[in-house]
Amino acid sequence: MPSRAAEFRAEEMALISALEHERLTAPRTGELLAACEADPSLGADEAAAANLREARRDYDRATRIPTDLVAEMARTTSQAVEAWKEARRTSDFPAFRPWLERIVELSVRRARCLGAPPGGELYDALLDDYEPGVTAARIDGTFGPLREALAPLIAEIAGSPLRPGEPVRRVRVPIDRQVEFNRRVAERIGFDFSSGRLDVSTHPFTEGLAPGDTRITTRYAEDRFTEAVGSTIHETGHALYEQGLPKGALHGQPLAQAAGLGMHESQSRLWENHVGRSRAFWEWALPEATGLFGAAIDGIGVDDVHAAVNRVQPSLIRVEADEATYSLHVMLRFDLERAMVRGDLAVADVPAAWNDRIRADLGLEVPDDRHGCLQDIHWSSAAIGYFPTYTLGTLYAAQIWEAIVDALPDVEGRMARGDFAPVLHWLRENVHAHGRRYRAADLCARITGRPLGHDALFRHLNAKLRPLYRL
Amino acid sequence: MPSRAAEFRAEEMALISALEHERLTAPRTGELLAACEADPSLGADEAAAANLREARRDYDRATRIPTDLVAEMARTTSQAVEAWKEARRTSDFPAFRPWLERIVELSVRRARCLGAPPGGELYDALLDDYEPGVTAARIDGTFGPLREALAPLIAEIAGSPLRPGEPVRRVRVPIDRQVEFNRRVAERIGFDFSSGRLDVSTHPFTEGLAPGDTRITTRYAEDRFTEAVGSTIHETGHALYEQGLPKGALHGQPLAQAAGLGMHESQSRLWENHVGRSRAFWEWALPEATGLFGAAIDGIGVDDVHAAVNRVQPSLIRVEADEATYSLHVMLRFDLERAMVRGDLAVADVPAAWNDRIRADLGLEVPDDRHGCLQDIHWSSAAIGYFPTYTLGTLYAAQIWEAIVDALPDVEGRMARGDFAPVLHWLRENVHAHGRRYRAADLCARITGRPLGHDALFRHLNAKLRPLYRL
Repeated sequence: MPSRAAEFRAEEMALISALEHERLTAPRTGELLAACEADPSLGADEAAAANLREARRDYDRATRIPTDLVAEMARTTSQAVEAWKEARRTSDFPAFRPWLERIVELSVRRARCLGAPPGGELYDALLDDYEPGVTAARIDGTFGPLREALAPLIAEIAGSPLRPGEPVRRVRVPIDRQVEFNRRVAERIGFDFSSGRLDVSTHPFTEGLAPGDTRITTRYAEDRFTEAVGSTIHETGHALYEQGLPKGALHGQPLAQAAGLGMHESQSRLWENHVGRSRAFWEWALPEATGLFGAAIDGIGVDDVHAAVNRVQPSLIRVEADEATYSLHVMLRFDLERAMVRGDLAVADVPAAWNDRIRADLGLEVPDDRHGCLQDIHWSSAAIGYFPTYTLGTLYAAQIWEAIVDALPDVEGRMARGDFAPVLHWLRENVHAHGRRYRAADLCARITGRPLGHDALFRHLNAKLRPLYRL
Repeated sequence: MPSRAAEFRAEEMALISALEHERLTAPRTGELLAACEADPSLGADEAAAANLREARRDYDRATRIPTDLVAEMARTTSQAVEAWKEARRTSDFPAFRPWLERIVELSVRRARCLGAPPGGELYDALLDDYEPGVTAARIDGTFGPLREALAPLIAEIAGSPLRPGEPVRRVRVPIDRQVEFNRRVAERIGFDFSSGRLDVSTHPFTEGLAPGDTRITTRYAEDRFTEAVGSTIHETGHALYEQGLPKGALHGQPLAQAAGLGMHESQSRLWENHVGRSRAFWEWALPEATGLFGAAIDGIGVDDVHAAVNRVQPSLIRVEADEATYSLHVMLRFDLERAMVRGDLAVADVPAAWNDRIRADLGLEVPDDRHGCLQDIHWSSAAIGYFPTYTLGTLYAAQIWEAIVDALPDVEGRMARGDFAPVLHWLRENVHAHGRRYRAADLCARITGRPLGHDALFRHLNAKLRPLYRL
């Protein structure tokens, strides 16, 4: 967006958000909900009951927030995102600090309106926007053991003299060839191009615009063709969830929506980590790539690419992090934003706290805030409580993948032949078709047979990384 | 847009159009207008009075249209545009025919609601959407003499053995270099990139999204670098008008809007035809291009480019037409759509009528409807009455350019040095700043000293094309 458009855009966002909020919280909506709840036939239909339960939840949450706070939040974040872009460009945290202070203040005000759950904390009310029903304490119970398991594995890898995938780093592939290859990959794993588009943006994203219109983006660099593929597969995973949600008469209702951002992220991570980073995937994909890239990837074998996409290398930027260290970036943000909401961490102290943590967790020095606390857009858009869903999604993905392998013993063989339909079909039936019918944690337990833990992810990382680093 | 998104999009467009129409035609709007009209202080302020006059006009026109017709029009055109895309792709007029029949029917219904002006015809009511105050009879009075003047000039040129600009047709310029060059051209003639963007699309367009956010697009082909420049300058002309309209408190009010599509087109045509097709422009631009394109344009001189961009060659596609034959394409569409609205031409007979006219006017055979009556998007979006503004704008541009040359005798010298600020400044003061304060025809008379005619355009074409073809 052009810089001078920011101010008017902020007013537009405030107006639209307020209008939407007024419609959602209108007394008529409450009357309709009450009438449905009084109808005994609805209780007998499990799906309809779930739909009603979720609609009630959305209505109750919305009615706790005054419209002026909704408008102020929209206006402030619209401007803060622009301020963040400029502050990140110039690595100028002091310029962004008053915006972040204001956003924490508005978020706390919003959390107070929503109210903490019984025995919980204010931050839980914000978490609930992104991962309904989860609490910070429950996340502690999941993230703690994961952290303890990851630290020694990462340390062992850091001690290895091996640098897997080195030959792939010398490959250069023209962008237009990559564009064609990524399109083929997205299509092959199931993206429906008659119901969506694949374009280019600075930061890859997925947007479920409307029924029949799911947009994904990726980004390309000549010297990083595997990263573009990873991004494309990740966003395609999100898009497949969107394209697989119930349509038609249910549109706009909870059952046609995703079960939260954790489950959404599980769909992107499953395809990215368990399909796109598998040897089987590259057994199909590398010959396909060779046909398009020609001499550019001469001498590169499946082992080389598999090693390159699984290399572990602690780094400063979350979105470029490898599969093993990624969750440490997420935990840092979770702890810092929770402390800000609690009032235990002043915004002014965020850069120091961030840099200390990166040093402690990854052994790296943060050279400037661009590479530190200014790197992510989330806080500028008041998405506090969003980060934990990245790691929850990664954990769901690993656990769901084990269930898929159990159900489809030949899945690797099928993938190696370029046949991803069984995986998509399983996800369509077991995840996508349900929309918001089940809470993510319940859906996970239902389809994997056990509550969410870190063991599946850990088995996955060990099975892949120990051979790669000969540990 | 993905093809499967069309149906839902049509419902969205219908809903949004209906909501907008309900707001605009709300009794409260009428009360506010009446209160303003009763306020004597407003009459004393000429600008405020003009603002009120135009707001009243918009309100009165809108209240004549029932909301269901607005919604039906939005729904139908949203679907018809998709049907047209597919019909054009396969050159299948019968597939598009029922859509066009429905659109003519809805347009006639709409025109009946609006009512013909005294002594006028139904088509005038549609024209009024795009060029307030103009009538088909008045357009006849302008187009007739223009046609009579153009025919012999085009015939003389057709008889010439010369093929100006031939060397430029062999030039090939990589797209990325063209992108950079076009950006520099747009910026140099005055486009404010902090208040807008320049992107790529299949068909170039300008969209004044919001204050501080004017988007333009262009399109590139390696073997047609001058066409991309022409498109970019054309759209930049539209954008400069948008960026130069009054802002701030007036936003959303008539005085902050364009004086109609004819005047809008005059701004694009002025820059495209009188600046971008001038020798002076290329005296600045060619060295600039050479710095970027390098060997790709070795041996090409200013005379070659000037000849290439002014070459006259009757062709089938309006948007690719040269400056001399362009208006014949417009007149064809004006006559055909007027006949459809009158009921004198059945939709089923449009292809034959089109092809006969192309044969008579340009001496060409239309091989299929893709290259004939299916080429333009306008009718599918019910933009009946829009086409004449292209030629009105071309005529305004020529007359305004003569006024600029009178006011700025050294304008060619300035342009040859890459200084376009005096032209933009003149337009800002004399055209852009007024918004809708004056009707286009009145503004033209006011700033050029005479009513709109075809003489200025004809002087311009003769002065340029006769030497080029040694006539």
